Amino acid sequence: MNGAQSLARTLVGCGVEVCFMNPGTSEMHFVATLDAVPELRGVLTLFEGVATGAADGYGRMACRPAATLLHLGPGLGNGLANLHNARRARTPIVNIVGDHATYHKKFDAPLESDIESIARSVSPGFVRWAGAPETVGADAVEAYRAAVGPPGQVATLVLPADVSWEPGGIVPPPPPPPPTPTVDAERVHAVAAALGRGEPSVILLGNGALGPDALASASRVAGATGATLASETFPARVTRGAGVVGVERLAYFGEMVSASLAGVRHLVLVDAQPPVSFFAYPNKPSWLTPEGCEVHLLAGATDDVPGALAALAEELGADRAPAATAPSGRPELPTGELTARSVGAALGALLPDHAIVSDDGTTSSLFAAQQTAGCPPHDWLYLTGGAIGQGPPVAVGAAVACPDRPVVSLQADGAAMYTLQSWWTMARLGLDVTTVLFNNHSYAILNMELQRVGAEGGGTRATDMLDLGRPDIDFCGLARALGLTAWRSTTAEEFGTHLAAALATPGPSLVEIVL
Amino acid sequence: MNGAQSLARTLVGCGVEVCFMNPGTSEMHFVATLDAVPELRGVLTLFEGVATGAADGYGRMACRPAATLLHLGPGLGNGLANLHNARRARTPIVNIVGDHATYHKKFDAPLESDIESIARSVSPGFVRWAGAPETVGADAVEAYRAAVGPPGQVATLVLPADVSWEPGGIVPPPPPPPPTPTVDAERVHAVAAALGRGEPSVILLGNGALGPDALASASRVAGATGATLASETFPARVTRGAGVVGVERLAYFGEMVSASLAGVRHLVLVDAQPPVSFFAYPNKPSWLTPEGCEVHLLAGATDDVPGALAALAEELGADRAPAATAPSGRPELPTGELTARSVGAALGALLPDHAIVSDDGTTSSLFAAQQTAGCPPHDWLYLTGGAIGQGPPVAVGAAVACPDRPVVSLQADGAAMYTLQSWWTMARLGLDVTTVLFNNHSYAILNMELQRVGAEGGGTRATDMLDLGRPDIDFCGLARALGLTAWRSTTAEEFGTHLAAALATPGPSLVEIVL
Repeated sequence: MNGAQSLARTLVGCGVEVCFMNPGTSEMHFVATLDAVPELRGVLTLFEGVATGAADGYGRMACRPAATLLHLGPGLGNGLANLHNARRARTPIVNIVGDHATYHKKFDAPLESDIESIARSVSPGFVRWAGAPETVGADAVEAYRAAVGPPGQVATLVLPADVSWEPGGIVPPPPPPPPTPTVDAERVHAVAAALGRGEPSVILLGNGALGPDALASASRVAGATGATLASETFPARVTRGAGVVGVERLAYFGEMVSASLAGVRHLVLVDAQPPVSFFAYPNKPSWLTPEGCEVHLLAGATDDVPGALAALAEELGADRAPAATAPSGRPELPTGELTARSVGAALGALLPDHAIVSDDGTTSSLFAAQQTAGCPPHDWLYLTGGAIGQGPPVAVGAAVACPDRPVVSLQADGAAMYTLQSWWTMARLGLDVTTVLFNNHSYAILNMELQRVGAEGGGTRATDMLDLGRPDIDFCGLARALGLTAWRSTTAEEFGTHLAAALATPGPSLVEIVL
Repeated sequence: MNGAQSLARTLVGCGVEVCFMNPGTSEMHFVATLDAVPELRGVLTLFEGVATGAADGYGRMACRPAATLLHLGPGLGNGLANLHNARRARTPIVNIVGDHATYHKKFDAPLESDIESIARSVSPGFVRWAGAPETVGADAVEAYRAAVGPPGQVATLVLPADVSWEPGGIVPPPPPPPPTPTVDAERVHAVAAALGRGEPSVILLGNGALGPDALASASRVAGATGATLASETFPARVTRGAGVVGVERLAYFGEMVSASLAGVRHLVLVDAQPPVSFFAYPNKPSWLTPEGCEVHLLAGATDDVPGALAALAEELGADRAPAATAPSGRPELPTGELTARSVGAALGALLPDHAIVSDDGTTSSLFAAQQTAGCPPHDWLYLTGGAIGQGPPVAVGAAVACPDRPVVSLQADGAAMYTLQSWWTMARLGLDVTTVLFNNHSYAILNMELQRVGAEGGGTRATDMLDLGRPDIDFCGLARALGLTAWRSTTAEEFGTHLAAALATPGPSLVEIVL
């Protein structure tokens, strides 16, 4: 058994079933193991950012890691932006980067580069060089353990070509399950006391606090104390819809966050960070917690976050109180002008049961979230790290993780152009992904930001850099060229018809919305 | 004057005229300077790999740097693969990476990342953080000096948002011209002596030795001594065609290099590295210089490379001898089956005068080089660092640098999918780029490599990872959706007609070759 085979078998033994890849010559022995180890499924992507984003989407939905397979430093570079998003989502990923044979590196062949420096930026907690076929299996176990945490992370394993091809591979036993996270009773007690004072309070929920049970406990706490619930602006995954506790996200713009926190005396962090402005702006604050507000930590990323919320509800005597869940209800199918609002209403009218929404819609998808609040329960995946182009790959990964669930990809035009190669992988695998493409012919968020930053002299030569027209991009044409069924909608009625058709179409499809 | 304006004016003062960009919020003040400083032209790209590759193509043709403008660590990541290629090409680039405001970084906002680690991998010689508006101009001068070298390099300047927006910017004077490179007379003498022995010798020419004058001198040396000329496998830019000295490139596969160097006793390096295998393979050597062969350095990257070759010719008494230039001649337009060979013949029949060829054709463009050897003089730009997806962006940059010269982009299908966003920028600017797209529905090179590495068990599940069919990618559809005129050719006659039409079409066009 060569090193590559021992690596593949070890990953399978750990429960890793999928490898999203864009391989090159140095990875050919690992690719060849796909026939020897059929329990590991290879998914080809045409660009590394698709592979890494798909691993992120897979990990968020499956709650266990996929592997990636990238080609040396440049391949890792191409995958870096979505690994950055995955780092912010704390998604477990075993990120395998092929490298030259160990003895070949000193020759500085054209593809030689500093993989470690690049990897550290997204894998600060775990970068390991596999040193020998005898030990690459053990390295994979450690990478898997690091990836699953808690907290979850991107764990990078660099795989030299000769470590893959040389014999002597050993498959170690899978690791013990990760330690059971615990509840810190003192923190629970302190938070209960703070909330019990009846002063204005906000409970800020992050990644670990946004599943249905945690939300129900949080709602009971809010009901018992008068505290307000909020979630971080860009969580990795939120379960929402009828029968689930709904929670408002903090706004994107700092001044709106400041307004919503004005007068708050207690901010309780539940696997969340104190809110800060997404970007800095002249004469606007970065730190958004109001002066005089006490910040309390209930639970962090390595704690039992739902357990801490349940214990808090119990301490407050509210653990049997009803949770304030969202009522069932859908908007009517809209008519008339096609706007972000009417698109949202059509989504609310038609979102399938158990849908997964991959949201990379930037300025255009706010209404969609509002209008789907009463739809049957579904999961919403946000852009965690601000690196646009996350949406289509995350949709790929979510669909691979959950083949029985429909995926809706809410996608801005500018952001789509970073990772449109994803559509081809959707077509190859016949994934049930419906892309709603908001075509407003611009980086709309940047037109807002150009004003907000107060830049002097931003005239036509500046705004030209934010304009996606001239030529207009034909997104239906792009989608069809990559194997999707596609429609273009110009009225609300058309969009309702096209969206229904797209959702009913097996395999991937796209509806382009001309705004 | 704010920091961004002083930066823009300083760059203009240094002679930087173009900035290829994909900006975000933290770069808005720099974008706004485009109106205040109209001497700096902004070129929008839809993906950072297009911006960095375009800066590479521009620098190779203009022989002076363009700037880039990238959005924090993830934007730099997206641009990394083509910066890697630029590093290998030694292209001068002033690589500007926007960052959060200095005081904002400590808040670890979602887009915060380790820019320095990422940048070091492609900018090992120069990464600088602009610290204040008063000094960013001086930082830009240093970045420019580092970029132009010699040797040329990617110089990264990290630009915090507040350094852009705060007042106090100062425009320093442009730097003195770079030091005049010199010829090392002792090396010339030693090489002349070695070649004078009449033993089998190869003169290996790298980047600085592939302009017309250097090639003529090299040819005179070869004529006087019986030495064989060869070039590195993937040089940045070669001038070739009728009336220019032609030179064979070393082969891609190591065993072919070994065969061509068998028995050679003297290897003279002229701004070149001793040949090594591109990748390592089991039981094949990485180091390709034959045993017993003496390696001599005539000139390195910081020397006067053409001068050293001229001095060598003079020392050998050959400086007035005729150079063995390529005869003028074109193949006939081919008929019959459309193959890589007939595509090459059609290119040879039709390549315009003074064309620039951006070659990212991997397995498909070898014949094109052979068949254009007698065409009017033209420049050929190779994939220097092995990171595929270089071709379309480099074509963009070459066309911006040389608006009066036609550009031909020889493009493999798999490689095209990394940076197809380039086509939109070609359309926006109306660039005269004709893309010849070899659609063989596979990563053809990897199918060869899978065999060559001797991977066990490479069956259908492995080869599936190298197959770009299912669904077939409609490259004409992609090109038209991004604003290009496009044709699909299935016979040699069709290709001749389509290529002639494409070359005659103003603005960008694409001919898809179904192989």
